[in-house]
Amino acid sequence: MSTIANARNASRAPIVAPHRAPRVVHVALAGCGTVGASLVALVQREQAPCAARHGVRFEFTRILVRDPDKDRGIEISPDLFTSSVDDFLAADADVVIEVIGGLNPAGRIARAALDAGRHLVTANKALIARYGIELQQQAVARDATLNFEAAVGGGVPVVRTLRSALGGHGVRSITGILNGTTNYLLTAIADGATFSDALADAQAKGFAEADPTRDLQGLDALDKIRILAWLAWDVDPSEQRAIIEPLPANPEGPVREAAERRDVLKYLAGATRGDDGVVRVWVRPSAVPRDHPFARVRNEENAVRIDSDSLGVLYLQGRGAGGDATASAVLGDLLEAARAAA
Amino acid sequence: MSTIANARNASRAPIVAPHRAPRVVHVALAGCGTVGASLVALVQREQAPCAARHGVRFEFTRILVRDPDKDRGIEISPDLFTSSVDDFLAADADVVIEVIGGLNPAGRIARAALDAGRHLVTANKALIARYGIELQQQAVARDATLNFEAAVGGGVPVVRTLRSALGGHGVRSITGILNGTTNYLLTAIADGATFSDALADAQAKGFAEADPTRDLQGLDALDKIRILAWLAWDVDPSEQRAIIEPLPANPEGPVREAAERRDVLKYLAGATRGDDGVVRVWVRPSAVPRDHPFARVRNEENAVRIDSDSLGVLYLQGRGAGGDATASAVLGDLLEAARAAA
Repeated sequence: MSTIANARNASRAPIVAPHRAPRVVHVALAGCGTVGASLVALVQREQAPCAARHGVRFEFTRILVRDPDKDRGIEISPDLFTSSVDDFLAADADVVIEVIGGLNPAGRIARAALDAGRHLVTANKALIARYGIELQQQAVARDATLNFEAAVGGGVPVVRTLRSALGGHGVRSITGILNGTTNYLLTAIADGATFSDALADAQAKGFAEADPTRDLQGLDALDKIRILAWLAWDVDPSEQRAIIEPLPANPEGPVREAAERRDVLKYLAGATRGDDGVVRVWVRPSAVPRDHPFARVRNEENAVRIDSDSLGVLYLQGRGAGGDATASAVLGDLLEAARAAA
Repeated sequence: MSTIANARNASRAPIVAPHRAPRVVHVALAGCGTVGASLVALVQREQAPCAARHGVRFEFTRILVRDPDKDRGIEISPDLFTSSVDDFLAADADVVIEVIGGLNPAGRIARAALDAGRHLVTANKALIARYGIELQQQAVARDATLNFEAAVGGGVPVVRTLRSALGGHGVRSITGILNGTTNYLLTAIADGATFSDALADAQAKGFAEADPTRDLQGLDALDKIRILAWLAWDVDPSEQRAIIEPLPANPEGPVREAAERRDVLKYLAGATRGDDGVVRVWVRPSAVPRDHPFARVRNEENAVRIDSDSLGVLYLQGRGAGGDATASAVLGDLLEAARAAA
C-alpha cells in the first residue's frame, strides 16, 4: 500500500487511529447458529472497510459449537470448531463473543472471559437481564469491557443510545415493541393468516424458534425491557416490579376485534420510574390506534420510544430479529471492544 | 462515601471504570449562546450521575464569549469568561467544546485544540462539512478524538449510529428531515399560520435564527446530509455532487396545495451512492403522503431513514433543534471524550 493510500485511509472517519498495517484482534466465538454464522460471514465481508476505517482486522481463533461437523454454509477452517467449553476458554482471544443464548454454559463462558480480562460481547438478553450487573462489576474490576447491543432491539441501537447519549439524562419512560417473533405473528394474523400458519412461516424464516414459549409468554420482551430500565435508571432488574401478560393462546380473535375498532394489536413492553423511585416494567398485548407509530411496526421490526427530560421523545425503529440485523449489532460492539483492546 | 456505596456505584453500567473519587476532566467551552448555556446547566445538573456512572466530574476552565458581561441565566464564575481567542486557547483543558458555529474563529479553535492533542467536541455542521476530513486526520495524528453528534440531527443519535453501528456496513441510502427550523415553519403553516407569523414565532422560541437564510435556502440541511454521506461512504463532501432547491420564498401556497392532495410538504435531504461510486446529495421541498412516517415529524423534530444491506431500514426520530436537545448530544460526546482522555 502506498503512502498516499495510507494518508487517504487515515482521513476516513476512523473510530481508532488506523495503523499502517491493521492491528489483528483475536476473537473467540461461542455459538454458530443463525446469528453466529451471519456474524462470521459479515466479518469476512467487512474486513476491508474495518481495516480502512477502524485499523483492525479480526481473526477467529476458536468457535464453540455443539456439533463441529454440521455444515453452516460459511467458509471457515473446520479446525477452529470445538465442542468443548474448556478447550474454547483456553483459546487465545482479545474478545470473546457469546451468541449461544440461555444461561448455561453462556454464564460460565461470560464469567471466565471477563475473569481473564478479555472483552466480552454478548447478544444474550437472558444473561444480561439476570447477571448484567454482576458481569459489569467483573468487567470493571478486570479492566475489560462488556457490550450487549444485540441483546435488545436487534439492529436498533437502543442500548448504545441509553448508555452513551442518554446515560443519566432524566429518562421518564420507555415503551416499545421488543419481541420480533410476536410482532411477526401479529402482523401476519392482521394480514389474514391463521395463527398456526403464521407460526410455521415465522419458524421457517428463522424469526421464531422451534419452541416459541418465551416469546409468546412475554419472557423475552421482559428480559429486554428490564435491561433498558437498568440502563435508564441504574436499578437492578431484580429490584424492578414486573407485570407480565402473555399473548392470548390464539391471538386471532383479539387481532380481529382490534381491527374492527380500527386499532392494531401489538405486544408492547414498557418501563417507568415512579416518584417513589420504584421502577415498574410491564409486557402486555395492547390495541394501538392505526395512526400511532407503533401500528406501523411490521413483521420482525422492533421500535422503542424513549421519553426524557432533555431530549423529549426519541423514537427508534428497525429490524429487531434475523441473523443479519443481530450480527450487525454484534459487529458494532466488536469494533468497540477492539478499540478498548488497543 | 462508604465502600458499600462505592461497590454499588461500580455496579451501575459505567461506561468507564468509576474511580473511588471521580476523575476531574477539564473542559474549555467556546460559545455560550443557547446551546452553550444549556450545556453548562446540563453538566451542572448531571454531575452526580456522571460521577456515579462514568467516574468523571467535569470542570469548566474557560468559556469564550463575545460579551463577558452579558447575563446568561447560568450560575458560573464570571472569572471563567473571556472574549480573547488566544486567552481561551491558552486555558488548561482535556476537552475543547466548540458551539460557536460558523467557520471563523471556530476553525482556528478546532485546529489549535487538536494540534495541542486535546479532544474536540463540536456541534458545528458547517465546520465538519467543510473541514471534517482534515480535522479527523489531525485528530488521528495527535492521538486525539473528534466528536460531532450534535452537528447533525440535534438529539437524534445519527452520527453515532453511522460511525459505530453502521460504519462500513453497506449503507444504500439516507433520507431525512434534517433542518428543524424549516420543519417548524412548515408545520405551523400547515396548521394555519402565515409564513411571517410562523417565522416570528420560531425566532421567539429559539428554533430560528435572526437571519434564517441558511435554513430557508437548504444550506444547513446540505451541510448535514454531506456529513452523513461522508460517514456512510467515506467520500469527501467536496467530491459529492449536490442538487439543492431552496424552500419557496413564501411556502404557504405549496403547503396548502400539498394538503389538498392529502400530502404534507416537507423539506427533505437525501444521499445515495450510484453504481458508478458517485455520491449524490440533495435537498428539496417534497410532498410526502399523509401516512408516511416523515409526515408525522412535527415542529422542530428531525428524522432520518437509513437503508443498509445488513440492517434494512433503520428509522430515527427526535428533537432536532433547541438548546436542551443539542446540549444533550454534546454531553454524550463529552462523555466519549472523557473516556478517551482517561
